[in-house]
Amino acid sequence: MKAALVLQTDFGLCDGAVSAMYGVALSVDPNLHIYDLTHEIPQYMIWDASYRLLQTIRYWAKGTVFVSVVDPGVGTNRLSVVAKTASGHYIVTPDNGSLTHIQEEIGVVALRQIDETVNRLPNSGDSYTFHGRDVYAYAGARLASGLISFEEVGPELDVNQLIRLPIHQAEVADNGEIIGSIDILDVRFGNLWTNLDRSMLFDLGFTYGDKVLVTIASNRSVVYQNMLTLRHSFAETACGDALLFINSLDKLGVAMNQGSFAHAYHISGGATWQIRLKKIKEN
Amino acid sequence: MKAALVLQTDFGLCDGAVSAMYGVALSVDPNLHIYDLTHEIPQYMIWDASYRLLQTIRYWAKGTVFVSVVDPGVGTNRLSVVAKTASGHYIVTPDNGSLTHIQEEIGVVALRQIDETVNRLPNSGDSYTFHGRDVYAYAGARLASGLISFEEVGPELDVNQLIRLPIHQAEVADNGEIIGSIDILDVRFGNLWTNLDRSMLFDLGFTYGDKVLVTIASNRSVVYQNMLTLRHSFAETACGDALLFINSLDKLGVAMNQGSFAHAYHISGGATWQIRLKKIKEN
Amino acid sequence: MKAALVLQTDFGLCDGAVSAMYGVALSVDPNLHIYDLTHEIPQYMIWDASYRLLQTIRYWAKGTVFVSVVDPGVGTNRLSVVAKTASGHYIVTPDNGSLTHIQEEIGVVALRQIDETVNRLPNSGDSYTFHGRDVYAYAGARLASGLISFEEVGPELDVNQLIRLPIHQAEVADNGEIIGSIDILDVRFGNLWTNLDRSMLFDLGFTYGDKVLVTIASNRSVVYQNMLTLRHSFAETACGDALLFINSLDKLGVAMNQGSFAHAYHISGGATWQIRLKKIKEN
Repeated sequence: MKAALVLQTDFGLCDGAVSAMYGVALSVDPNLHIYDLTHEIPQYMIWDASYRLLQTIRYWAKGTVFVSVVDPGVGTNRLSVVAKTASGHYIVTPDNGSLTHIQEEIGVVALRQIDETVNRLPNSGDSYTFHGRDVYAYAGARLASGLISFEEVGPELDVNQLIRLPIHQAEVADNGEIIGSIDILDVRFGNLWTNLDRSMLFDLGFTYGDKVLVTIASNRSVVYQNMLTLRHSFAETACGDALLFINSLDKLGVAMNQGSFAHAYHISGGATWQIRLKKIKEN
Repeated sequence: MKAALVLQTDFGLCDGAVSAMYGVALSVDPNLHIYDLTHEIPQYMIWDASYRLLQTIRYWAKGTVFVSVVDPGVGTNRLSVVAKTASGHYIVTPDNGSLTHIQEEIGVVALRQIDETVNRLPNSGDSYTFHGRDVYAYAGARLASGLISFEEVGPELDVNQLIRLPIHQAEVADNGEIIGSIDILDVRFGNLWTNLDRSMLFDLGFTYGDKVLVTIASNRSVVYQNMLTLRHSFAETACGDALLFINSLDKLGVAMNQGSFAHAYHISGGATWQIRLKKIKEN
Repeated sequence: MKAALVLQTDFGLCDGAVSAMYGVALSVDPNLHIYDLTHEIPQYMIWDASYRLLQTIRYWAKGTVFVSVVDPGVGTNRLSVVAKTASGHYIVTPDNGSLTHIQEEIGVVALRQIDETVNRLPNSGDSYTFHGRDVYAYAGARLASGLISFEEVGPELDVNQLIRLPIHQAEVADNGEIIGSIDILDVRFGNLWTNLDRSMLFDLGFTYGDKVLVTIASNRSVVYQNMLTLRHSFAETACGDALLFINSLDKLGVAMNQGSFAHAYHISGGATWQIRLKKIKEN
């Protein structure tokens, strides 16, 4: 059984870029099974690419080879690598921070630099702007098809030298407030996804039905402050009501049932966005 | 030969949700063939999901397993079901109206409730917000791969208890006007798709070349009234001209050649939109 | 080994049209491998469809069957054809100009008209508006699966009678300026892709590091004129700086590092857009 090849980029699907990557991978092995993670990562947003890998990797079989290309540094001396994760997956990517969440929450157990003298599309040496096609799809396909082993990717690197984006850790303040960050949006539905784990919240005594004072701030300016209830599901609230919920990654989310919380309050995700919780009333 | 698995959701493709569904299905059987219907159903629009199933199902082989997840009631006690259609297909879906058009125009011959004690992703019991991944993709993959039979989905239900959205039937008024509804848009091209069958219109004496007085109303307010000609094809009219045509589902459509009729007149689809036809002149 | 089937349309992915094409192709052969080029060709833009075929075809294995459906003339007497390219690929398409770039840069060595008495979806004869499903997907699947040979597509046509869109050739003016056209945008990133080949530019003495006076005009009105440097990669410039580069098709591009050159200066692609280069200073 060959491993599946799963592609992620910020290229979008409106031109032929992703299709060229498919063609290159299938030219390595026409029987490869190729799938998409997403190609709608916002342009150059390495953070989002890193997060989407974490969101999906555990649902794919061990041995699956991910290719993740959000690559503003293409053509510079940033490294091209393949990481082996503690979960038994492989990720082919430029070393620019796209492994941040995987390394933090799952672990990277080994790292290889792609040897482009063998693992690069033949006769593509004059192309400096599309390594997604010429290097990453090609090398990923060779690994997924079994043409090369992980060791044959290229020379070993120290996993501790991987580029990492800064991650805020959740914490409990002296006044009892829980302080977290809004890591990313569930873009389509306008929900906020925080870095606060269900297990942490439940260990601190939270439970479904609790009323919580929620404060959301951007660069320390408060943009939202209100009481919300922690719900099992959206449908427990009236249509249009805001709520707290545990999302599909077992982290705290903030939503508006059948509306968009993010649009309603002009809230986005990323390093500048903070969420604070204070439990007011028991269930 | 395994059956194909065809996925439809309102999740969009900009994050990892659909990819997680693929991963779960392939973890059931890595040799499954998985395809997409669409993932761009407008958020929570069960009507559209129901319609898109009708639009495509007849073009897929018998035995194909569809998974359709537009699920505003996730986490409530709405049922999770698998329907067997008169056409020999299976549809895995929350029972919330998404089988309306299939039941109306094709027929549902048997219905089973998904037994989540066996047909749910192991260790996913604490997730209340993503049954598309944890229940529907998993159960659909088990059925498509042949791991379970239709009977092993779970207990039988009465097909007459399926939730159905209200459907307007086409009718002929006393003054001879034909009254129908605008079921949905061909979104990308801005065409209106009505519920008026070609066979009904032709039985009533309509034919290509006929000039027809077309009245379009929303909540009884007329928003468009003009003479249009029933054409074989868009290209029979001048670029920019409006026309009547028979669409790819053999129903009457209203279009503007290389323009958008829907945008031009601010027309949408759904229960409040009515179309009336009066034939003025023979071909 | 069967050939891959690769689909391109202007249908978008928000309804069931592309899925119906997949279903039809798989009804011909359930083991076909079907992939997408793109379905986001702007509506009716035959030029873009032609260009995207050129962008991707060389990355797919010989024998691959492309189906390209941008078809404003559906239902008229425009021909339905299959072209065999000098590169050993097949393209199934309406004859309306969508083979322009392939014929110009790669070559069409043989052409057949689709015989719809055999190579059309059975019982689809009353549908005049969706030949993508009824003719092109069906005929393409028959060819890719090996059910028919290229000769069995239908009667031979003269390749010189193919409809071609007008293409501007790059030229060198008397004053030494190089005059080219902006063929298309890299839409997602806002880069301009010109028709100026790297080999032509380098033969004329250009090299990386050169400073070039770039003039961009629409219908002879200058909309941009400034000095730009020819770079190996985007990352050699400051974030936000404009640059010249060689794109992934070995043609000259104009970009703004992590910005959108096209949005910044309201520039688009196509027949009315001209670019002129004058080298000012050696590297």
